Amino acid sequence: MTHDTAPNPGETTGRRRLRADRARQVADVIRQQILRGAYDSCPLPDERLLGEEFGASRNTVREALDLLRSDGLIERHQGIGTVVVARKYAHGLDRLMGLAETLHEHGTVTNEVRTAGPVTAPRVVASRLRLAEGAQVIYIERLRMLNDLPLSLDLTYLPMDVGEPLLAEDLRNRDIFGLLEKVHERALGGAEVGMEAVNADPHSAMILQVPRGSALLLVERLSHFACGRPVDLEFIRFRGDRLTMRAAVSRA
Amino acid sequence: MTHDTAPNPGETTGRRRLRADRARQVADVIRQQILRGAYDSCPLPDERLLGEEFGASRNTVREALDLLRSDGLIERHQGIGTVVVARKYAHGLDRLMGLAETLHEHGTVTNEVRTAGPVTAPRVVASRLRLAEGAQVIYIERLRMLNDLPLSLDLTYLPMDVGEPLLAEDLRNRDIFGLLEKVHERALGGAEVGMEAVNADPHSAMILQVPRGSALLLVERLSHFACGRPVDLEFIRFRGDRLTMRAAVSRA
Repeated sequence: MTHDTAPNPGETTGRRRLRADRARQVADVIRQQILRGAYDSCPLPDERLLGEEFGASRNTVREALDLLRSDGLIERHQGIGTVVVARKYAHGLDRLMGLAETLHEHGTVTNEVRTAGPVTAPRVVASRLRLAEGAQVIYIERLRMLNDLPLSLDLTYLPMDVGEPLLAEDLRNRDIFGLLEKVHERALGGAEVGMEAVNADPHSAMILQVPRGSALLLVERLSHFACGRPVDLEFIRFRGDRLTMRAAVSRA
Repeated sequence: MTHDTAPNPGETTGRRRLRADRARQVADVIRQQILRGAYDSCPLPDERLLGEEFGASRNTVREALDLLRSDGLIERHQGIGTVVVARKYAHGLDRLMGLAETLHEHGTVTNEVRTAGPVTAPRVVASRLRLAEGAQVIYIERLRMLNDLPLSLDLTYLPMDVGEPLLAEDLRNRDIFGLLEKVHERALGGAEVGMEAVNADPHSAMILQVPRGSALLLVERLSHFACGRPVDLEFIRFRGDRLTMRAAVSRA
């Protein structure tokens, strides 16, 4: 039998709390292996082996697997063992890319265009797009699917001259980034991105086909043409169980 | 009375669904103003004014404010109006920085060191830190508080030679990044960062003082010395209601 070997428990006291802490610690490491695809083609090692690997008791390992099961990452299948059931895709922050560009090797991104047309820009939208107060903008709302499963709900504001020509394009199958560059024959320069973790409200949950309250990655992104003009303001809700963001950060 | 003015509703049908879509659209824009501090010193405009601003009905505005209230961002105070009650801090991905460094102008970061000492590295931890299988590493677990409110729970693995000298340092009040550079007289180079939105499990929720299931930003970060040696593998759970991530992304 193996025993939990935790260093100086410090302010953590009590057997049950300690096990929960150890379970989280084990779960975090297994989670990264799952995200990296280590168990895509074979079940996870059994509890005994995982216990040895982590110097943890069977109960701790079981609790760690429970955490990953609650996150919808794994399932236990009778006679097979514990298998990975969720696929998370990485969206890089190192280079500004549309979703279809990013995920092309994983499948086909299609967009259900929920609405597309002119609206009066709210003051702050006009200001961020450097438009006059009360200017008209093109508003496009899309449910984006990868291989027919919802991945994100995107709300997009474009200046009228930039966005209107896009309405005649193939919004169902093309990224807006690609269309902007094609239609305007100008390259995008970059974007400022803000990210938050939020709980899905009931209506967004229904659209994204997740339980109410599920964790979503809410992204606000303002993209510019290479000349610096801001041309694309987006509010994106990514399903937390289908997407990770990756970035390389430098200290200097 | 104002009316909802949405462009071609497309596949969106039915009055109730349409209002929920409009409410989300309005809420997303107000949310960004809140995060930018637009209402830090004064209440939000009243429902009538917001309705005019967004060309939306009172009911839609009310539903938008409900969404922001569910997220814990705002509260309605009798006789005062709707005020911002949450403060979210931005953590930049443009430069690798510790939490205390990042947030120094917002207050004092202190760390409750929950455990700190040697453990045998799980195989994947050893591999990511480029250590031999079965190597000992220093494991440090900290609850990080900004002005005495929990902000994140950090699980950190450091190679023995890198981490052991840190145990004698002021882990309560200093970032590990700063201590690594001070003790080893070497600069950090950068890090690879992965981010996910997850729901808080009951035990993590208790530690971070949020309701069960609250959205958390789960960050995995592997930091290197400037020479390229990986020296700090972290698993960080940030409270979704207290932190945003910001990045600048380039297309080229």
